Amino acid sequence: MRTAEFEQWVSKTLQDVEGALELWVPKDSPAGLGEAMRYAVLGAGKRLRPLLVMATCEAVGGQPEAALRAACAVELIHAYSLVHDDMPCMDDDVLRRGKPTVHVQFGEAQAMLAGDAMQALAFEVLTPEADQVPLALQARLCALLARSAGHAGMAGGQAIDLASVGHPLSETALRDMHRRKTGMLLQASVMMGAACCRACSPATQAALSEYGSAIGLAFQVIDDILDVTQDSDVLGKTAGKDRDANKPTFVSVLGLESAMRHAQELRDQAHIALSTSDLTNTDWLIRLADKVVERDS
Amino acid sequence: MRTAEFEQWVSKTLQDVEGALELWVPKDSPAGLGEAMRYAVLGAGKRLRPLLVMATCEAVGGQPEAALRAACAVELIHAYSLVHDDMPCMDDDVLRRGKPTVHVQFGEAQAMLAGDAMQALAFEVLTPEADQVPLALQARLCALLARSAGHAGMAGGQAIDLASVGHPLSETALRDMHRRKTGMLLQASVMMGAACCRACSPATQAALSEYGSAIGLAFQVIDDILDVTQDSDVLGKTAGKDRDANKPTFVSVLGLESAMRHAQELRDQAHIALSTSDLTNTDWLIRLADKVVERDS
Repeated sequence: MRTAEFEQWVSKTLQDVEGALELWVPKDSPAGLGEAMRYAVLGAGKRLRPLLVMATCEAVGGQPEAALRAACAVELIHAYSLVHDDMPCMDDDVLRRGKPTVHVQFGEAQAMLAGDAMQALAFEVLTPEADQVPLALQARLCALLARSAGHAGMAGGQAIDLASVGHPLSETALRDMHRRKTGMLLQASVMMGAACCRACSPATQAALSEYGSAIGLAFQVIDDILDVTQDSDVLGKTAGKDRDANKPTFVSVLGLESAMRHAQELRDQAHIALSTSDLTNTDWLIRLADKVVERDS
Repeated sequence: MRTAEFEQWVSKTLQDVEGALELWVPKDSPAGLGEAMRYAVLGAGKRLRPLLVMATCEAVGGQPEAALRAACAVELIHAYSLVHDDMPCMDDDVLRRGKPTVHVQFGEAQAMLAGDAMQALAFEVLTPEADQVPLALQARLCALLARSAGHAGMAGGQAIDLASVGHPLSETALRDMHRRKTGMLLQASVMMGAACCRACSPATQAALSEYGSAIGLAFQVIDDILDVTQDSDVLGKTAGKDRDANKPTFVSVLGLESAMRHAQELRDQAHIALSTSDLTNTDWLIRLADKVVERDS
């Protein structure tokens, strides 16, 4: 199904996102702060969240300028969370996206500030002058992003993660943690793409929400699988660290084979959510769901 | 000038802000995250920023429901910055608002996450359903808050602060640092209050911006003075720490007497900005400018 076309779309979209981030992440911020922010966010990463925003926006026929801002904002939130997550008081990791982590490169204080400034920047990017993105849409995008990043979403998931080291978690608790920690921002990427079209019906939004929820969880299941099956070189981050930290994972709870089967079921759920919606232009979303499950890093 | 009335207004406004924060800062967030957030933000602090938002909103005749959200959002940003600023990799402080700092009470990882979640919560608070605050106003408030908190504002100022320890700063550089680190969020408090009125003229906005800028700087000058003239009990935070850290301050650059005179000049500037505007209901703003300069903690 249109593999070459999909790859072309990915490559073109990544170029747009990279160009926009290059423009919006400051070069000349005081005392090296901009440099640390750029190091953290430019030129690396799979950019799955921006691709989800842009693919959803295309599927619903939304405003691409708004979607590009949403794509960069959600990537900034993701990138800031990695910077803070890697710090000594959290995961204490030295390798990320194949490079030394931000605090190794710039010091802990600068890493914390860079992360803080990246979160603020996400909301700066979402709130340009009114002639660029309608104000009502800006507000809607800020609402979606803030809720997925905050205490009930990503930050809450990280708090559960932190509290769960060395404690056995039930499968239900593990799902809840990952839904918050990773799933909600991935789902928000889809819903922000959908918000870029004013005419998106509640039924279509519900289908997209289900799609986003399924791939959000699939992403984490695969992450847990890769953590035990790949080495650090391929991942660009330290492999085996969940096991070493005695963290519960889908692999430790379900076993490797069941975890893989579960990821495939979630991909199927994502496909079904799209095929039972009234959307027609869903090829890229289907391929992105495949990509989430078939990735090797 | 209406001292008793002013004190009554302050007390009523603080009650409203406290009640709203009590409602909006989550009780039941996962893994103790909500508890850490509530510890950091509830029941303490001078609430100068919320008072500025509310006083400005009254002066321009704006929407009080929107202003109350803006007041809480700006306080959440301020409180998160204190949590992160107190951490070992930054100022390494153990006392804040008369209590052990958040990382002392809950651990560093939880403190970092609580700060992160408080920044997100600020934008959640600003983006309720459309029937509560008009969407265009939500977008405008998010824009003002994000820019004052981010790389060109508060976070940028903190990066300069970090880089300046042990380095002599010129008066100009010191002003630039403080304008970003403290001044811009105080000024944003005023501008967010002004934004709550759709009819606020550009001339009025300019006057309020000048008022906000002057008291923003005055606040920091007084902070520097109190750091050397008061003890920790009165301040509720560790006194003398700028001197101990060999940080440049207005006192070290100007001397104590000139610094005090400078704070009074800034207060006068703030008063003049108001008196030359077309605003009539400025009593609370005038009193708040006095309060900034006359405070002893």
